[in-house]
Amino acid sequence: MAPTVGWLHHRLAGILQQTLRPAAVRLELWDGGSPYTGPEPPIGTLVVKDARTLRGLIANPHLQFGECYMFGTLEVRGQLESVLEAISRLSLAPSWGERISMHLPAPGNTLTRARRNVHHHYDLGNDFYTSWLDEQLVYTCAYFEDPHQSLEEAQAAKMDLVCRKLRLQPGETVVEAGCGWGALALHMARAYGARVKAFNVSHEQITYARARAAREGLTSQVEFVEDDYRSVRGEYDVFVSVGMLEHVGLTHYGSLAAVMSRALRRANGRGLLHFIGRDIRRPLNAWIRRRIFPGGYPPTLAEVATRVLAPARMSILDVENLRLHYARTLAHWGRRFAVIEEQVRTRYSEEFRRAWELYLAGSEAAFATGSLQLFQVVFAPAEAVPHSWTRAEIYNGAKADDDWYAATR
Amino acid sequence: MAPTVGWLHHRLAGILQQTLRPAAVRLELWDGGSPYTGPEPPIGTLVVKDARTLRGLIANPHLQFGECYMFGTLEVRGQLESVLEAISRLSLAPSWGERISMHLPAPGNTLTRARRNVHHHYDLGNDFYTSWLDEQLVYTCAYFEDPHQSLEEAQAAKMDLVCRKLRLQPGETVVEAGCGWGALALHMARAYGARVKAFNVSHEQITYARARAAREGLTSQVEFVEDDYRSVRGEYDVFVSVGMLEHVGLTHYGSLAAVMSRALRRANGRGLLHFIGRDIRRPLNAWIRRRIFPGGYPPTLAEVATRVLAPARMSILDVENLRLHYARTLAHWGRRFAVIEEQVRTRYSEEFRRAWELYLAGSEAAFATGSLQLFQVVFAPAEAVPHSWTRAEIYNGAKADDDWYAATR
Repeated sequence: MAPTVGWLHHRLAGILQQTLRPAAVRLELWDGGSPYTGPEPPIGTLVVKDARTLRGLIANPHLQFGECYMFGTLEVRGQLESVLEAISRLSLAPSWGERISMHLPAPGNTLTRARRNVHHHYDLGNDFYTSWLDEQLVYTCAYFEDPHQSLEEAQAAKMDLVCRKLRLQPGETVVEAGCGWGALALHMARAYGARVKAFNVSHEQITYARARAAREGLTSQVEFVEDDYRSVRGEYDVFVSVGMLEHVGLTHYGSLAAVMSRALRRANGRGLLHFIGRDIRRPLNAWIRRRIFPGGYPPTLAEVATRVLAPARMSILDVENLRLHYARTLAHWGRRFAVIEEQVRTRYSEEFRRAWELYLAGSEAAFATGSLQLFQVVFAPAEAVPHSWTRAEIYNGAKADDDWYAATR
Repeated sequence: MAPTVGWLHHRLAGILQQTLRPAAVRLELWDGGSPYTGPEPPIGTLVVKDARTLRGLIANPHLQFGECYMFGTLEVRGQLESVLEAISRLSLAPSWGERISMHLPAPGNTLTRARRNVHHHYDLGNDFYTSWLDEQLVYTCAYFEDPHQSLEEAQAAKMDLVCRKLRLQPGETVVEAGCGWGALALHMARAYGARVKAFNVSHEQITYARARAAREGLTSQVEFVEDDYRSVRGEYDVFVSVGMLEHVGLTHYGSLAAVMSRALRRANGRGLLHFIGRDIRRPLNAWIRRRIFPGGYPPTLAEVATRVLAPARMSILDVENLRLHYARTLAHWGRRFAVIEEQVRTRYSEEFRRAWELYLAGSEAAFATGSLQLFQVVFAPAEAVPHSWTRAEIYNGAKADDDWYAATR
């Protein structure tokens, strides 16, 4: 028999329910009671299974929602993403706690810590990711040319979009910072004839990427280096980094700027940063930082402009916000992850499965509501002549004319 | 007979020539002497006609280059834009004086001062601008779909680009802050069926715009208001401002944010800011501020993001840097201005003509070298669902599908 709910906890539940009411989310306590008085029917129900969970949700919701969900003392009835989306809309502005924490010193991502952080997430086992990512193992926001594209098509379209935005030409040299399982580097070599040097500190990912390059006969064009982006040496035509900046951490933006500045040819170089960002400064959700991405921080565009691009003397040429594409990508991942629910529970644990389920659904909600953004930023050294006259050629398939500027002056 | 050049001024000329040598610009003094030892032939020559000009160019080049050119004690032999471009490349980084001046309090653009600043430049007489601008009197960066378009075509293309980026629909309401002679407001009404309220503090411009609206039978769709943007009231679907932000001044970005925040419908609104900007913080050239644009300041993208868009709770959706389009626009203006040289001299003065010649050529050089940028920023309220899935429809002429998001979730 469930313990009864005392006076104090009834009061607390009332307060929490009041906060949730604008989202039309119902609260239910461990004795089955509910103080819900909002619109009928509610879009979903949070089932709080004990007093400790209730107190946690009030005292530290950003951390405890995830913790309690993960360990099963918080259940969600109704569609998880919709409930999270509704709750996310309630808290589009940072809380006071979050504002204060922005001014506290954060642990820097030293080389050792960076490796450990990456290992935490990306070395879970290649077959874990193989079982729910697209066939090319692209673990970043896809680009849906039309909303009905499959995830496979949309990831290929994303890689093409990146190459087209960069006006990548045959024979050009590329350095990639944070290459995942190597899909983009291989795509640049295969489809665009580029020569790519790709860095990643995840041993599992680099091993996989190298095997793939060998299998495709691309080892002469693509070199996978198991090392930190800060070890990049040499000069390249193109710098690209997709989904790494979120892991770099504000305190290391200066190092990234130094790498970009020395790695990119000043006269004709250009680069692209693809990263999860924010409209306003705000720390990453506390639970995501604890369980999913230690050391993670999604920057604002202004932070990237002033702390990375300006110190590297880069000029911003193009910015696109693809947040809805990430919401859709995450919806695909969430559906695929649900299919392998049983295997994940068996191989890892129920807590692990619930943590990942929440992480995927919560991220989808955050991108759908605009709590998170996805920025693609194209830049070039301040003194370089931009490589194109308009963006039309990205979309209409026309060939870029390298000499347009000289020819038409 | 010209006075001879003494030992001190020979020394000073040597120092100045050393600075100019990397630009392959030759210095010639009032006695015909030249300390030039750079590559032959040089791309152009600065002819310094007296000792005061020489000292001015060394002590305060940012101001005195313009002053001396304007008053004729500094001549440029060779193509003016090319010489200015070469000199501009020498000083892509801000000088110490400029860095310091960024931290000095600047006079704020109060309502009175804003009117006076605008009057200084924009009320020179409509026939002055009519004689060298395009036929629609668009005095902002054009958009050349291909580099061979005429200025008229490119200004029409720019207005279309703005409307397409905004996904402007028939019947929607627009508020425009700083409408010049009304071309964009009338275009939005005529070609897109929008209802526009357009603000401008220049009496001459508003009078002209009203007459044009009447002539075209668009007075029921477009209202021209002779008032400051801070007087905007009511709610609109679209906020647009092309070429005004440069005149607003950093200290008033908060007021602009407040206007945008209250003027834009939160659920489905969106806006576009088109402005001259910088890669790094740097004041506007001192001479341009004195003679051409009092109170002008070209902000960085980060300044606009943190001081205008974030306080207005707007999310950045799209940024395009069109600096080369402005270089080309200015080249068109410069050629047209040269044709009416004689009339300008007669109606105004030789100093006025030289000031404008230098302003147009110097601005062309600044955009060509990347000392100035031109940013178009599309944004929407943080909680609004973006109006489009990709940017392709801007370029391929396809119709935007308003219901794409709902339909495909």
